[in-house]
Amino acid sequence: MASEIARLDILAGTQAEFEAAVARAVPLFTRAVGCRSMRLLHSHEQQDRYWLLVEWDSVAAHEAFRSMPDFAAWRGLVGHFFAVAPVVEHGIDLGIGS
Amino acid sequence: MASEIARLDILAGTQAEFEAAVARAVPLFTRAVGCRSMRLLHSHEQQDRYWLLVEWDSVAAHEAFRSMPDFAAWRGLVGHFFAVAPVVEHGIDLGIGS
Repeated sequence: MASEIARLDILAGTQAEFEAAVARAVPLFTRAVGCRSMRLLHSHEQQDRYWLLVEWDSVAAHEAFRSMPDFAAWRGLVGHFFAVAPVVEHGIDLGIGS
Repeated sequence: MASEIARLDILAGTQAEFEAAVARAVPLFTRAVGCRSMRLLHSHEQQDRYWLLVEWDSVAAHEAFRSMPDFAAWRGLVGHFFAVAPVVEHGIDLGIGS
C-alpha cells in the first residue's frame, strides 16, 4: 500500500471555500481505481496549510489517477486555491506499526 | 483527532537498523495515553526518508507523550539515526474524506 502525503498551502482567507471544494471532490477519489481512502487535515501549526492523505493500492494507482478526467476535475475544483504547487510524496507501508 | 506527520531523514546506509529500531519502539506508542495508532512509511521518492504517522486523540496528548519516559526511550532507540532533526507537524481531522 502507498500513502500519498500532500502538503497544500493555500491562499490566505480562502479556507472555508477550499474546505467546501475538497468536500465536493471526495467522490472523485472514492471512485478512483485503487483508491482506498482519503482525508483532508488542517495543519495545527500553519493557518493556510492542509495535508491530504490518500491511501492507494500502489504508487502506480495514484499515477494512473493523474491521467484521468477525475484528476482534472479535482484540480479544477481546488487548483486556484493553491498559493504554491502542492508538495507530494508517497510513503510505502512497511508493516511496522500498530 | 490529531495526526502527527513526521518526516524523518536518516543517515545513509542505516535503513535496516533504523527499521528494526522503530519496530522495537512500537509498544512505546501503543501504550501511550491518547495514542490510537502509528505507522512507519518509507518514502518512495527519497531513499533515506521515512514518514511516521501517529494518530493521537489531540495535539495535547502528543505533547504529554513528549514529557514521558517512553518518549525518551523512543529517542534513545532512533535518535542516533537522524541525519537532521525530524520535521513534525500535526493535521487536525476535519471530517472531510472517505
